[in-house]
Amino acid sequence: MQEKVKQYKDYLRKADAFDHAVGVLYYDFETVMPKGAADHFSKTMGTLSEEMYKMETSPELKALVTELYEHRDELDEITRREVEEHREQIARIECIPMEEYVAYSELESMASAVWHQAKVDNDYESFKPYLQKIVDYQRKFALYYAPDKEPYDTLLDQYEKGLNKETLDAFFGKLREAFKPLVEKTSAARDSIRDDFLSRNCPVEQQRKLSDYIMDVMCIDKNYCILGEVEHPFTTEFSKHDVRITTHYHEDAVASSFYSVVHEGGHALYELHTGDELMGSPLAEGTSMGVHESQSRLFENIIGRSRGFITAVFPKIKELFPEQMEDVTAEEFYRAVNKSVPSLIRTEADELTYCFHVMIRYELEKRLIAGSLTVDELPAEWNRLYKEYLGVDVPNDTKGVLQDSHWSGGMIGYFPSYAIGSAYGAQIVASMKKDFDVDKAVSEGNLRPVIDWLTDKIWKYGKLKKPAEVILNACGAEFDPQFYIDYITEKMNSIYGF
Amino acid sequence: MQEKVKQYKDYLRKADAFDHAVGVLYYDFETVMPKGAADHFSKTMGTLSEEMYKMETSPELKALVTELYEHRDELDEITRREVEEHREQIARIECIPMEEYVAYSELESMASAVWHQAKVDNDYESFKPYLQKIVDYQRKFALYYAPDKEPYDTLLDQYEKGLNKETLDAFFGKLREAFKPLVEKTSAARDSIRDDFLSRNCPVEQQRKLSDYIMDVMCIDKNYCILGEVEHPFTTEFSKHDVRITTHYHEDAVASSFYSVVHEGGHALYELHTGDELMGSPLAEGTSMGVHESQSRLFENIIGRSRGFITAVFPKIKELFPEQMEDVTAEEFYRAVNKSVPSLIRTEADELTYCFHVMIRYELEKRLIAGSLTVDELPAEWNRLYKEYLGVDVPNDTKGVLQDSHWSGGMIGYFPSYAIGSAYGAQIVASMKKDFDVDKAVSEGNLRPVIDWLTDKIWKYGKLKKPAEVILNACGAEFDPQFYIDYITEKMNSIYGF
Repeated sequence: MQEKVKQYKDYLRKADAFDHAVGVLYYDFETVMPKGAADHFSKTMGTLSEEMYKMETSPELKALVTELYEHRDELDEITRREVEEHREQIARIECIPMEEYVAYSELESMASAVWHQAKVDNDYESFKPYLQKIVDYQRKFALYYAPDKEPYDTLLDQYEKGLNKETLDAFFGKLREAFKPLVEKTSAARDSIRDDFLSRNCPVEQQRKLSDYIMDVMCIDKNYCILGEVEHPFTTEFSKHDVRITTHYHEDAVASSFYSVVHEGGHALYELHTGDELMGSPLAEGTSMGVHESQSRLFENIIGRSRGFITAVFPKIKELFPEQMEDVTAEEFYRAVNKSVPSLIRTEADELTYCFHVMIRYELEKRLIAGSLTVDELPAEWNRLYKEYLGVDVPNDTKGVLQDSHWSGGMIGYFPSYAIGSAYGAQIVASMKKDFDVDKAVSEGNLRPVIDWLTDKIWKYGKLKKPAEVILNACGAEFDPQFYIDYITEKMNSIYGF
Repeated sequence: MQEKVKQYKDYLRKADAFDHAVGVLYYDFETVMPKGAADHFSKTMGTLSEEMYKMETSPELKALVTELYEHRDELDEITRREVEEHREQIARIECIPMEEYVAYSELESMASAVWHQAKVDNDYESFKPYLQKIVDYQRKFALYYAPDKEPYDTLLDQYEKGLNKETLDAFFGKLREAFKPLVEKTSAARDSIRDDFLSRNCPVEQQRKLSDYIMDVMCIDKNYCILGEVEHPFTTEFSKHDVRITTHYHEDAVASSFYSVVHEGGHALYELHTGDELMGSPLAEGTSMGVHESQSRLFENIIGRSRGFITAVFPKIKELFPEQMEDVTAEEFYRAVNKSVPSLIRTEADELTYCFHVMIRYELEKRLIAGSLTVDELPAEWNRLYKEYLGVDVPNDTKGVLQDSHWSGGMIGYFPSYAIGSAYGAQIVASMKKDFDVDKAVSEGNLRPVIDWLTDKIWKYGKLKKPAEVILNACGAEFDPQFYIDYITEKMNSIYGF
């Protein structure tokens, strides 16, 4: 058995190197690669995916994983979880013919490049055939894996174990019921909160200093984490010693990059604090996309948009932007970054309207995969739902259906993670508050207790615990969206004085 | 046979993807990777090198290459050259035991990271054990490959086919003889040329604009080539559609980054102009390091430091730095960037003293590999030779033995390429001048005829032609260092009025 485990760990080392290489290639593509290199990039990704496919579906590996799985009771906890996860991963891949797997990988790389340009050019038509193929492949792959299951449920499950349409329909139904009247009330009261100063010109050079400061406040170790600049911020990691967050600076929207750094910083903290004993293991990463988004959105909103946090960081903001913030108080800043106004762009949305952006994407991708919505109809349907859910008119596809990168990267079934994550976050912080005075620490600019608590309850486990186990461990109870509804309702009531 | 060729091309596609991945990992390491990630990076490089070793030494590949080699007369020209090169590459690798190959790859990655820090800290001692191991491995690998040959000759040969100590001793002897008196004369006349304005403070933001302009002057297509910022400028490429040049900005040395962009731009042009028919082939790159450096140094010096070029670009320099260049004429700028003063840093050296920097490294690495110089003695010997050859005192190792990245990256035998390349360049331009009025085109800021000529005579062939064939093709004669000696002598005489 010991020999088998050694063989398996050797394999994991090799797989880690491949993942690392593919990850860096992707990071490079997103950050600096010359545009004209997309074709070669896509071919390389295709070839490497072919190698990975061969590795993951080799009879030797399958025999090894199967044997280890059969003896899983004799394995240490880490190896047992690795084997369990791996067995499922193999099952997801081996059902796909290699040629389709490779062709899909190349398609995904090209689709990303095409989408970037399509967004710049407001040219949905050029992206449409790629999206069509991605939808078709995703549906087909889901059916290969689980022929008797609704394909969209299969897709949801891969981002958040156990999640399905039934749960989400109920979850979103509850949110709509609770938040719809609140959106109407805050919209009517929008003039009661000033936010004129958030669109004042703030030089990028100063915003970079703010990012640097905020990473320090978040206790992000720059020896292991860098901040890059891209059009569409994301976080990626190659080990707990190599985490990459990214942001985008808009001179007339200082809060935009500020909160994107806090959001991506939340993802980064999770990755930076997986247990040392997991280093090099595929378990050394966040347990699911829902839990990952719970951490990013927890930092972005529940911490980052709290009165205490603004109190702590506003002096620095004033120092960096003395003219722009001359006539602004911390309280005014706090209210401004919490102002709820229905808008066009998901990543810029306030906490209350945010979940409606997610619901729209959920409805659309559900129907795309089911085949009841075509890519031809998609932009009009996007616009219709924005009008229906948020009352806003979408002026063009760049600010509409082309705004997010997810679908171009094959991430169908991911969006609900943002809403589920937001809800997890509210429940997690409620639990945290039972253990210490969170508001006090945050208002002193001291995030260390928050980080220690989350490390202990969630981060250190990586994928050792499954999402539901993580929530149970952190909250002492199963997931309950009521915490989120209460949190949002109370916050809005307090800010608007309803 | 057709089936065999197809198999072989499939293999090359896979090898290209690996090269691409490893290249991007290395670029990422040099440009952005968090420092704390060096260990994981080094492990990944080790694992990938193990995979490449297995691929390159597999009995199947060897049988395939051998069979194709035996039928090489039936192959098209490209495939034949691929097979010839590949056969040699396999021979170089297969003589090394896999464990040593992998251990060396990991060592090289770590050594690069350690050297970066050692240079910052002026701490040769921390780098010394890594250098010791690199020297030992390089010597051992050279002996594995050619047990009966002097190891240093084997190393030289891999950067420049056919180059050996005998040729280089004679070459450098000639240069010393011709240039030593010239160095003395220019040193004595140093006060006759003003260069005070070159150390005036020039903001980085403006220098970036100058780089951008100079890339345009050099007709570098930014769709396929990006400029990055690093401590130690280099060029790398993953295909003719993905070339990366880098520079470093010093506020008080505007000419430094300017000429590093022109130098790396010369490398880039070569890669950007390999023939389309070579795309995806391992032949789609510069034929040797000597020929590569001939192109970079040709652009940096023979073109870039010519009176015509300065005449063409100086108006833009004045526009970008109006205050700093207020009291400077184009002629003064031209003379300043050609002023010859013995100095400490190779990459900043003028054309005349440059080859002495190379000779020092040549002497030292030759003796390191021969075992007649130890890594303990190296810094003192470095300093002694700088005093002897250039009359300068080395104040610390950061400005001495730690200044270049080459040895930390295992590149022993590379340095002579710079001197050989400089000499190739002089002969190539002499030949070019027979075909059209180079000075006229350059002084009009029109580099297109130069680029077209070099594309036609050198660049388009990539590795299809060997270095000696390339020189013969471009110059209509074999390599003759006299062109270089004449070029330097005439230039110095003209500038100093000897």
